[in-house]
Amino acid sequence: MSTTFERATAVRRAGDGVYDVELDAAYSMGGPLHGGYLMATLLRAALADSPHPHPVANGFHFLRTPRPGPARVRVERLKSGRTAATARATLIQDDQVVLDSLVSAGTLDPVAEPDWLGEPPEIAPIEKCEEPWTLTPDGPPGLAGQVEFRHDPETSGWLRGEPLGRPEMRGYVRMREQPQDPDPYVLAVATDAMPPIVFGIGKMGWAPTVELTWHMRAVPAPGWLAIRVVGRMVADGWFDEDVELWDSTGRLVAQARQMARVGR
Amino acid sequence: MSTTFERATAVRRAGDGVYDVELDAAYSMGGPLHGGYLMATLLRAALADSPHPHPVANGFHFLRTPRPGPARVRVERLKSGRTAATARATLIQDDQVVLDSLVSAGTLDPVAEPDWLGEPPEIAPIEKCEEPWTLTPDGPPGLAGQVEFRHDPETSGWLRGEPLGRPEMRGYVRMREQPQDPDPYVLAVATDAMPPIVFGIGKMGWAPTVELTWHMRAVPAPGWLAIRVVGRMVADGWFDEDVELWDSTGRLVAQARQMARVGR
Repeated sequence: MSTTFERATAVRRAGDGVYDVELDAAYSMGGPLHGGYLMATLLRAALADSPHPHPVANGFHFLRTPRPGPARVRVERLKSGRTAATARATLIQDDQVVLDSLVSAGTLDPVAEPDWLGEPPEIAPIEKCEEPWTLTPDGPPGLAGQVEFRHDPETSGWLRGEPLGRPEMRGYVRMREQPQDPDPYVLAVATDAMPPIVFGIGKMGWAPTVELTWHMRAVPAPGWLAIRVVGRMVADGWFDEDVELWDSTGRLVAQARQMARVGR
Repeated sequence: MSTTFERATAVRRAGDGVYDVELDAAYSMGGPLHGGYLMATLLRAALADSPHPHPVANGFHFLRTPRPGPARVRVERLKSGRTAATARATLIQDDQVVLDSLVSAGTLDPVAEPDWLGEPPEIAPIEKCEEPWTLTPDGPPGLAGQVEFRHDPETSGWLRGEPLGRPEMRGYVRMREQPQDPDPYVLAVATDAMPPIVFGIGKMGWAPTVELTWHMRAVPAPGWLAIRVVGRMVADGWFDEDVELWDSTGRLVAQARQMARVGR
C-alpha cells in the first residue's frame, strides 16, 4: 500500500550508492518538473541507507532542467555521526548533473517542546482562503493536480491582476491525494510549492530556482501545512524567498530560503 | 601587496581542481578554527577558475574539526552557465572530508538599484555600541584579533550575565586590519562572526555549526558591515540563526542561515 506521491518519488537501488528513479510528468509546472518534487526524490535516495531519518539541513543547486522519464541518483556518504549524517546526492540524466545536493540528516524527537519559539505568522483561517485553480473536468494542471493550495486573500491579488506591492504569499498546502500526511518528502515539496513571490510585485513569468536550502525543524502532525513566503530584496534579476511551514498543531516544522531569477 | 586576511585564506594550485591551503591558527575560536574563515578559504578555491566572481548561493556542511596547518581543497566544476556557475569545493585533511560545499557564483552589477527592498533592521548607531573584548597587551584572543565587533547594547546583555530573553544579536563587524574592505571573502567571515545567538537565552557554551548557507546579494561598499542575527526556534538541541549584512551605504549585501547545536 503506497500513495501516488510515494510511487512518484520512489528510488530503486541499482548498485552501491546508485539509485534509479522515474521522473513523473504529473509533477510538472507548465513544462519543467517541479523543484520540490525533484528534491523529494533526491532525499529518498540520500536517506535510503542513512542512520538518521530526518533531513535537518538540505541544500540543493538546480543546474539543468530534467525531462520526465528515467534518471539516476548517485549518493556519496561523507560522514555518519551520532548527531548528524551527511551525504551528497546528485541527480543525473544523459550523463549530466541536473540537480546536486548536500544533505545532513538527524533524528528529531517527535514530542520535543521548543525551548524558544518565535511568533507564528498571521495567516487567514483556511475557510477564508481561496483555491487558485478553476477545476476543469480533467482536474487542475501539473503540480496543482498533486498539491492543493489555499491562498490568504490579502496576498493573492496577483491572481486577479492586482499585486500586493510586496513579495509575500501566505496560505496552506497539502497533498491532494489523502491520506498523505506531511512527512520529510512532503515538506520538501511544500517548501517550493508557492508561485514565485515576485508575482506580488507584478513580475509574472517563470522564475527558475538556482538554489534552495531547507531545514526540517520538527516532525509534522497530520493535516494542512500553513505556509508563509516573504522576500527581502529583488535586485539585479535575483530574488530571495524565505519560507516557513507550520503544522496543524502550531509547530514550526520547516524553514527554507531559495535564490531564484526574476522571470522575463 | 596583500593583507593578512588574503594571505591566511590564500589557495595554491596543486593540480587540476586541487588547491593547497595552510589553515591559520590566528582564526581560531577557543580551539576550533572559525567556520567563516574556513568558508572564505574554500570559496577562494571554488572561484579560482570561475567565470563569475560573486558567490551568490553557497551551502556549507561542517563535518569534522580541522587542525591549523596544511590541508587541501578539491574543486569539481559542475556547470558553467551565462547566469551562474556551480562547483563543489571540499576541504580535506588527513584524507577525511572536513567541510563540503556547493557554490553557485554569478556576476552582480555593482551599481544595480533594488527593484524592491525590505526595511533594514534597526541597529543602534555604531558610537552607541560596545566592543566586547577587554584588550590585553597581547591583543584580543583568536578570531577577535582578526575581526572587530561592536554590539548593540540592547542585545549584548549576555556579556554581563543578563541575557535578552530571545535569540537575537545586532551590531557591526569589520576586519581589524585596515584597509581590508568587505569583499566576498570578508562577507563569508562576517556571516558567521557573531557569537551563538542562544547566548541571548542564557545557553552559553560552544555551539557547533552543522550547516550554513549564505547568499551574496550585492557588492559591498567600504566600511563597517551592519549585522543582525535572529533565530526562529531553539528545540531538541538544534537552533537556527538568520543573518543579514548591510553595508555602510544601506545596501543588503548578504543573507545567511545556519543550523547549529546548542552548547552543553
